[in-house]
This record gives sequence, C-alpha cells and structure tokens, in this order.
Amino acid sequence: MSYRAPVAEMAFVMRHVAGLEAAVAEGLYGDLTTDLVESVLEEAGRFANDVIAPLNRIGDRHGTPLKDGQVTMPPGWKEAYAAWTAAGWNALPGPEEYGGQGLPTLVAAACSEMWNAAAMSFGLGPLLTMGAVEALDKHGSPELKDRYLAKLVSGEWTGTMNLTEPQAGSDLGVLRTRAERAGDGTYRITGTKIFITYGEHDLTDNIVHLVLARLPDAPAGTRGISLFLVPKILPDGTRNDLRCAGVEHKLGIHGSPTCTMAYGDNGGAIGWLVGEENRGLACMFTMMNNARLNVGLQGVAIAERAYQAALAYAAERRQGRAPGWNGEGMSPILEHADVQRMLLTMKAYTAASRAICYLTAASLDRARLCPEAEGRRRAGERASLLTPVAKAFSTDIGIEVASLGIQVHGGMGFIEETGAAQHLRDARIAAIYEGTNGIQAIDLVNRKLPLSGGETVRAEIAGMWSVLRRVTQKGGPGFGLTAPRLRGAVESLDRATSFLLAALGAGEQDRLLAGATPYLRLFGLARGGVSLAEEALAAQAAIGAGDNDPVQPGRIALCRFFAENLAVAAGGLEEAVMTGGDFGADARLALAS
Amino acid sequence: MSYRAPVAEMAFVMRHVAGLEAAVAEGLYGDLTTDLVESVLEEAGRFANDVIAPLNRIGDRHGTPLKDGQVTMPPGWKEAYAAWTAAGWNALPGPEEYGGQGLPTLVAAACSEMWNAAAMSFGLGPLLTMGAVEALDKHGSPELKDRYLAKLVSGEWTGTMNLTEPQAGSDLGVLRTRAERAGDGTYRITGTKIFITYGEHDLTDNIVHLVLARLPDAPAGTRGISLFLVPKILPDGTRNDLRCAGVEHKLGIHGSPTCTMAYGDNGGAIGWLVGEENRGLACMFTMMNNARLNVGLQGVAIAERAYQAALAYAAERRQGRAPGWNGEGMSPILEHADVQRMLLTMKAYTAASRAICYLTAASLDRARLCPEAEGRRRAGERASLLTPVAKAFSTDIGIEVASLGIQVHGGMGFIEETGAAQHLRDARIAAIYEGTNGIQAIDLVNRKLPLSGGETVRAEIAGMWSVLRRVTQKGGPGFGLTAPRLRGAVESLDRATSFLLAALGAGEQDRLLAGATPYLRLFGLARGGVSLAEEALAAQAAIGAGDNDPVQPGRIALCRFFAENLAVAAGGLEEAVMTGGDFGADARLALAS
Repeated sequence: MSYRAPVAEMAFVMRHVAGLEAAVAEGLYGDLTTDLVESVLEEAGRFANDVIAPLNRIGDRHGTPLKDGQVTMPPGWKEAYAAWTAAGWNALPGPEEYGGQGLPTLVAAACSEMWNAAAMSFGLGPLLTMGAVEALDKHGSPELKDRYLAKLVSGEWTGTMNLTEPQAGSDLGVLRTRAERAGDGTYRITGTKIFITYGEHDLTDNIVHLVLARLPDAPAGTRGISLFLVPKILPDGTRNDLRCAGVEHKLGIHGSPTCTMAYGDNGGAIGWLVGEENRGLACMFTMMNNARLNVGLQGVAIAERAYQAALAYAAERRQGRAPGWNGEGMSPILEHADVQRMLLTMKAYTAASRAICYLTAASLDRARLCPEAEGRRRAGERASLLTPVAKAFSTDIGIEVASLGIQVHGGMGFIEETGAAQHLRDARIAAIYEGTNGIQAIDLVNRKLPLSGGETVRAEIAGMWSVLRRVTQKGGPGFGLTAPRLRGAVESLDRATSFLLAALGAGEQDRLLAGATPYLRLFGLARGGVSLAEEALAAQAAIGAGDNDPVQPGRIALCRFFAENLAVAAGGLEEAVMTGGDFGADARLALAS
Repeated sequence: MSYRAPVAEMAFVMRHVAGLEAAVAEGLYGDLTTDLVESVLEEAGRFANDVIAPLNRIGDRHGTPLKDGQVTMPPGWKEAYAAWTAAGWNALPGPEEYGGQGLPTLVAAACSEMWNAAAMSFGLGPLLTMGAVEALDKHGSPELKDRYLAKLVSGEWTGTMNLTEPQAGSDLGVLRTRAERAGDGTYRITGTKIFITYGEHDLTDNIVHLVLARLPDAPAGTRGISLFLVPKILPDGTRNDLRCAGVEHKLGIHGSPTCTMAYGDNGGAIGWLVGEENRGLACMFTMMNNARLNVGLQGVAIAERAYQAALAYAAERRQGRAPGWNGEGMSPILEHADVQRMLLTMKAYTAASRAICYLTAASLDRARLCPEAEGRRRAGERASLLTPVAKAFSTDIGIEVASLGIQVHGGMGFIEETGAAQHLRDARIAAIYEGTNGIQAIDLVNRKLPLSGGETVRAEIAGMWSVLRRVTQKGGPGFGLTAPRLRGAVESLDRATSFLLAALGAGEQDRLLAGATPYLRLFGLARGGVSLAEEALAAQAAIGAGDNDPVQPGRIALCRFFAENLAVAAGGLEEAVMTGGDFGADARLALAS
C-alpha cells in the first residue's frame, strides 16, 4: 500500500533523456543546478511518501459526499492540503511575479508525478489550479491577475475548468451556457456544466471557476465561445450565484469530487471575461495543453505505484517452487518467470512513458526559455508533437500496468482492501478526460504531423536514429537484441509516418482517422524504447566509469526487455496503420447486428 | 444496460466453427437436431434477456451482506433463481439418470454464455454447481450420488469448490485443512477456506461443499490431498459444523458472495470422501477443467455485453461531424473512424474468443460421444489443448473489451450509473480464478504441447492451414488481406510451437515458462482468426446461395478487420516467445530498485 517516490530514477531520466544537464549547462534554467533539482525532488518525495500517500485509501473509501450544496472532503485531506501549500509545493511551477517559484516544467512534472502517485485524487486538484494559473497568466487582464493569480499560485484558492455540458463533450462547439453583458464590464453566466473536477470542496475558502460560455450575439460553433472567470465568493465577500448540484458516483478517483455545477439559478453568476470575446477556446487550450501532459503523468504515476505494490507483494508472497529456487519451502512468486514477465512489463512500460512525459516537459521549458527564437519555435513544435503521445500512451499504460498489478496479486488483487484494484479504478479516467485518447490520436495525425510541413516529426525520428546508431556502435552484450528490435520499431514508425504524411497531402481523412490510434501507440513504443536505450547507454557509461550500483546493469536489462518483448509490437501496429484502416465502408456492415 | 442474447450468431458459430451440423449428421448427439438446438437457444435467450439481465445492476449495488453467519442475496435474485431452476435450465447439461437433460456441452456452453452475459454474478453460482455435479458423477460413491446428485442437477441445492487457503492458492500442495476418519465411514473436517464462491447464500435450503483436505497420515504435497463432500445441512436435517466467517469486499461481481468458510469450530464438520483417499486433486481437476471453459465463457459473455452497450451508446450519442456525414447536426459517434475501430475491435475479439470456447466445448462432446476410441482420444486431447486458451485468451479479451467499452462511453463510462464500468470490474476476476491466466499459459506449454508427443498441437495447426487454403482459393474481394495476414499469424504460431517443443525436448524450462504467456496469446489470435475465417467462408457460401441478410457480408468484414488489425500482433508475440524470454538472469537486476 505504501509509495516511495523513485527519486533517483526520476533524476536519471531528467539528466539522460530529458537533457537536464545540457539545459543547465546552456544556462536555460538560470542559476538552477542539477544538485538543487535533486534536492527538490528528494523533499517532494518525502512529502509525497509521508503525507499524501496515506490519503489515497482514505479518499477512496470516504469519497466526497455532497449535502446542502456543500462537499466534504475525506478525513485528513484539508490538513494535508494546507501543509502542502504552506510548504510551497503548489507554487513550484507558478510565475515568480505572483509568488511562484518559477521552477522548470520538467521539475514540476516530476513533482506532479509524485503527488499523483501518492494519491491521484489529491494531485488532480492542483493540476486544475495550475491550468487556471496558466490561462489567467497568459490571457487575463491586469486587474484579474492582481486579484486572483497570487492566491491561485499559492494554492490558497483552487481553480477549475468548466467545459463539458451534457450535449457538449468532445465537441465543445455545441455548448449552451450563456453569458450576458451586464453593462459594467462584468457578465452574467447561466447554465449547467458537468464533470467539473473539484467544482466544490472544503479545502479552501474560495474556488475560481473558469467557464466557457456563449454571448448572445456569438457566432455558432467553436468561434463563438468565450472564457469567463466566475469565483465562488465574489470580491465583496458574498456568494456568487452558482452551486454544486450533484457529485458523480464514479468508478475511481473517489477522493476527487466530480461536480455538476449550476450557474445562474438566481439571475446569473457574475463573471469576468478572460481574453477576448469569442476567443475562449484558444484560452482554454492554453490550460489544456499543459493539463494533457499532467494527465499523462497521472498515467505514469499510477503505473509506478501499481508496480511498486506488485513488486512488494511478489517478493513476499510464496507459492510453488520456481525452477532453480534453492531456498527453503516455497519460493517468492517473484522467482517465477511468468511473474517476472508481468513485473518487467509493468516497469518497462512505466519507464518508457515517464521518459516521454519528461521529454515533453523539457521541450516545453526550451520552448519558453531558449534564447534563440528558432530554438524556441522548434522546441515548441516538438512539445506539441509529443503532448498527445505523452497523454494517450502514458494513460493507456497506466491502465494496462494497473491491471497487470491486480494479476500479480492473484485473488488478493480482486479484494479492495489490498489496494491493487483501486489503482485500476483510478487509472481508467485518465484515458478519457482532457480529451479522450482517441482525440489525442486524431490531434497527433491531423494537427501535429503537419507541423512545419512534416519536418518536426521527421526531426524527431532522425533523433531516434541517432540514438540507435550509438546503441549499435556502443551497446555491450547486455543489450541483447536491443539494437535490431528498436531499429525495427523505428523503421515501422518511419514508414507509417510517411504513409500518413502522404495521406495528409492527399486529403485522405479516412486513412488518417482510421489509423490514428495504432499510430500513436507505435509512436509511443518507438519513442519510449529509444529513450530507454538512452538510459541504458548512460548506465553503461556509468559502469565503464566505475559505478558499481546494480541499478545500472538493471537499466540495461530493462531496456533490453522492452526492446525484445514490447517494442516488437511495432510491426503489427504498422500493418494496422498502413493496411488495416480500410474498414470505412465495411464498418457499418460488420457492426450491424 | 439491456442485453440481447446473440442467438443467431451463436447458432452460426456452432454450425460453422464448432461442427454442430457434422456432429448431428454423424449421430453424435442422438436424435438432437440443429432446429432443436436453436429453439433451446431462443428460449434461453429470452430468459436471459427478460429475467436475469435486470438482476445485474441490482446485484452490483446491493452486494451480498453477511449478518450472523447468514448471507442475504440481492433483491429479486431468489425468485429469479427459483424460476430459472424450475424452467429446467440448471439441469440442461446434467446427467439424465439424475434428472438432467444431458444436452451437449456445446449447447450448455452457449447457454452459459447467456446467463453470464445477463449477470455474471448470477451465472457464477450454477457454474460451480455444474462442477460439483461432474466431480460427484465421476468420482462419488453410489450412495453419495443418490443422496446429492438429483438435487444438484435440478439446482434445488447448489455446490461449491473449496480449494484455496490463505497460504495455498496456485500451489495447493501446501493446504492445511484437516480431515480425520470418524470410524463410521465419515470424516471430520477442520480448517479455513477462503475465496469460496457462493459459500453461503439464501437461494437454496442446502449447499453442498466439496472440500480439499489432508488426512493425518497423508503424504506431503499434492499427493496427500483428499476430496470431501461437506453439506451445510446434514441428511438428518441438522446444521453441519461449518459457517461463513466473512464475505469479501471485492472490485466486482458484487452479486456473488465470496466467502471465508470455517469448518469444524465445534469438533469437525461431517464429510464424506469423494473418490479415493489422497486422490482428491485428480477429482478436483475434473471439475476444474470444465469450470475453466466456463470461466472462458464468462470472458466471452462480459465482452459481448460490454460490446452491446457500447454499440448502443455510440449509435445514440452525437458529437462532432464525421467526414462524410450528411445528416443533420452532429453525427452519432458511431460514424467516427476511431470509434468504429474500437467497436470493431470489441466485436472481433469477442467473436474470436467465442469461437475458441465453442470449439473447445464441441471437442469435449466428441471426446465423450465419439463411437471410436481413437476419435474420443484425439478429441479429448484437442479439448485439453484448447482449454487453457479458451480460459485465458477469452478472459483477457473480456477485460480488454470491457475497458474499451468504457472508452467508447467517454466520461459517461466512468460514471457507475452507466453500467459500462461494472463490466470491467466484473470481468477482472475471470483472469484470476480457476487458475490464473499465467497458470493456464504454463499448463499450455508444459502439459498440453507434449500431448501425443506434439502431434495434438501439430494437428491443430494443420487444421488451421487447411482453412487458410480455402480462404486463399475461395475468399472473395471482401476478404482483403485476410489470407496473407492469417497466414502470417499461423506461421508465427507454427514456428513458436516448434521452438517450444524443442525446448520441451531439451528440458529448457526457463524458455518455456518465460514464453508461455505471449505464446498463449499468439495461439488465441491464430486460432480465433482462423475460426472467423471459417465463419466468413460460410457467410460467403450463404451469399452465393442467395442469402441477402446483411449479416453475411458483415461476417466477412469482421474477419477481415480481425486479420488486418488484430492478428497482425502475431509477429511481435512470436519474437517475444523466441527471443524475448531470455530475461531469467537479468530479471532480478532489472527489478531491483
């Protein structure tokens, strides 16, 4: 049940995959040092392990009951949240002019992984607040910023994103919540929003809702949506005209209240415009892009926690005698090859998805901080390319790894008290919210492949080839078939990419949309496998330099397992993209019953 | 939320994959006709749809509370069970000399799928009773049979299997429950069993427990285990010395009470030996083999129900405008290619696993009913070979399809009221109980591949080749790349099989155990794909004969989707078996933290 933040592993990925050392050397992060980063991670890890992790089970059991419009958070959560904000953790990535520590997104990403691994329902609240901070920082008026940003950055107040309505989910163009100009520069908001995470709670005195709504004279569709800031408590201290009308009974993340929010029961909730009228979707996408990476990190987080629990159980639980077991009595199930396969699969997938997410975070940093405009542009496009992969691949992995975690536990895994089942229940939402994984895949093929006329994805693949050349040249015997297997995966990605770019050029939407999901998975396998190879090469270099830590050969072995057992799915995915997507005309026939 | 038994599809699979027509023509099933089989399916389908399906949600919400040793089943369950047994459904596969209808296992399998799809927690009880019937019928003394079989066959009483103890799960050799000879031919049983499905309930007046225990002078390990019949109510009407000491709080199947059973608090529960002393495990395997097929059918069942729910939702829910959508406003999400891919994946996997299970059932029938001894032997070995695939492949598919079902529902899928989440929660146990899927894979490579010196698996693969020759020769344009893709999958299976048979011959347990799980998946993909091709060929023949039902080209399209998008995973699985299983020495390194 316990969680120990894998701080050393996180730091290793930051250095050798996400380019932390290079970025520090270039001065990208100012006077930040890798030592300072590691000490931040150490401290965050302690807080996550000691204070947040114990909340996980409590949140699952107690849920967030709603009574008379008030949501009660689970026991201990309010105190933990207060301690967490007091220690400055909410402010970690926030802008310095509003009291934030302005630390790199890369560091914030690792911390975000820890909070979410310790208790995903706990980590989810600040994830939304962080999105609100970004949207407000980029698009808010000076007045709004002065009034709200400092308190959102510190975590004294929390933020929400109000997009979904019953008829408007993936398609926001049809949302109906109305906003009317009050004549004094404010607006009156009326409508119902659903699935509002942390829409109501008792952790803080105020909640700052960012709400998408439509002005009376707005054009139809997505070009007629505006973004409003609608606080629960108005500046004069009175309650705004909004309430929580319901809390969902969900499969998982029971500690996170998912609210139906009713705006304007009594004439309209008072709201302030964020950004320009009818440009709300663009503002919202500012928050969603970062939120997508953070949801990807939730996938990594839950996978890591599920893996740790399964490993601990497998080391303790004894059944049968594995071949070669020389100990007394039954061997720990960890000695059985099939259990090892499950655990290695869990750990390798987790490591691969972490590498992709950290790489995305580092690209976001570079897009903001690189001194050259061209460097910023390229990094920005790289981050854009990787974001849907980080979100969808990692959250799919979160589900698969959590499910394997149950399997390792055998019958005990099905019993709720064990805790393994909660991980699967919690993980399941991450593939859905902040844009379903199908939407991510479509975003990848339709919006991200065409970036710079295909040059961005070409450059990403070229980078993979350069790592693989190093593996071929330098990889020692421990690498096994790493080089040929990863070459196979990147070749598949290469061909599938050319195929989809050609389809884009020819306007063949059918092929793009039908192949999007297997293509994203293929991308994740190749990028993840190559990143593990970078780790393995760094580990080999460390061994060569005299490092005797057994974790180093372990990194090589894990990379090898990934290449030989998981990356080998690439060929089948390539075929699904290139020749499997032709089902359009037949789909209706096959699905008719 | 509703379920409609896919009776026509079931009958089609029986005829064209499981060889029902051939078996009827050979007289294997006596005077049973295909018409009669179909009318049984129709009636079972009506009962499942109308009476059992509504119990599913109720069972999930109410659970099975335990108070003062008594378990209360959810509202309406007792009445439904009584109606179900009164209609003769429990007796369907039972031996005729004890009031059963003696219908083929193939027919019973289809019915079992229906009960479990309608409500898996409901279907689970009779599944256990059926296992008890078999064990007793095969191994019980005439006296025990006379006393218990008729009531178990009719369902007036239910049966249980008591294997697991806290320290003895997959490894039954270490179980500790004791049995002492009372001197009067009976035994006194003392010990605690866990995870006992339907160990206590209020559906029937009596519950017949089959309990594995160890005699005082028994040899250690699995050769010292005996099987006892221990009824809740003794023949004289008094309570036996056993009680339900707890009911588990589980991830799913809330309507099925999972009990801790305490035997012999007051000196020992009275039990009767089934079979010979110290030969209990062999008797128990009699029930487990059939139970394994039935658990595989639970995987098919939950996949079918999850698919139906997702399809209905996708036809109704509107979001966005799919390319080519000419209707008004937003298109049903069913029109979106990525949603079609999910639904086709769900349907194709479900159909493939159904085909494997029905084929296994038909082989069990032939093993029992074939007039020639050699035919019985061969069919018996075929059933043995297919059983672990039917169990593990189908239950993995159950989980994957249920998870996809949530994804199709988007945010609504995560809300418990929708019902999609329950399918995933319920499905998750089937990969664990009756031998985890890892145990199935090990059984497949270690016990089933060597059958008849490898001839049994070679014959199975030869049968696949003969279907593929027909596809190559006769498959029309609608088959697309079905032939080459399925050839690729069967070639992969062929090579992986030769590799494992060689490893068996060389006594290389490491390779076998490490490759078992990907090999089983590969087997399922190849066997499932080939079975869908048999359906597609039959559909093409029907079209050629003038059948205008759109379901026929739909079958061809579904087979093609499976071949082009799912069977293509075979190559990667082959590599995982042949070159990925070499992690033994490295696993401990990679898993060290």
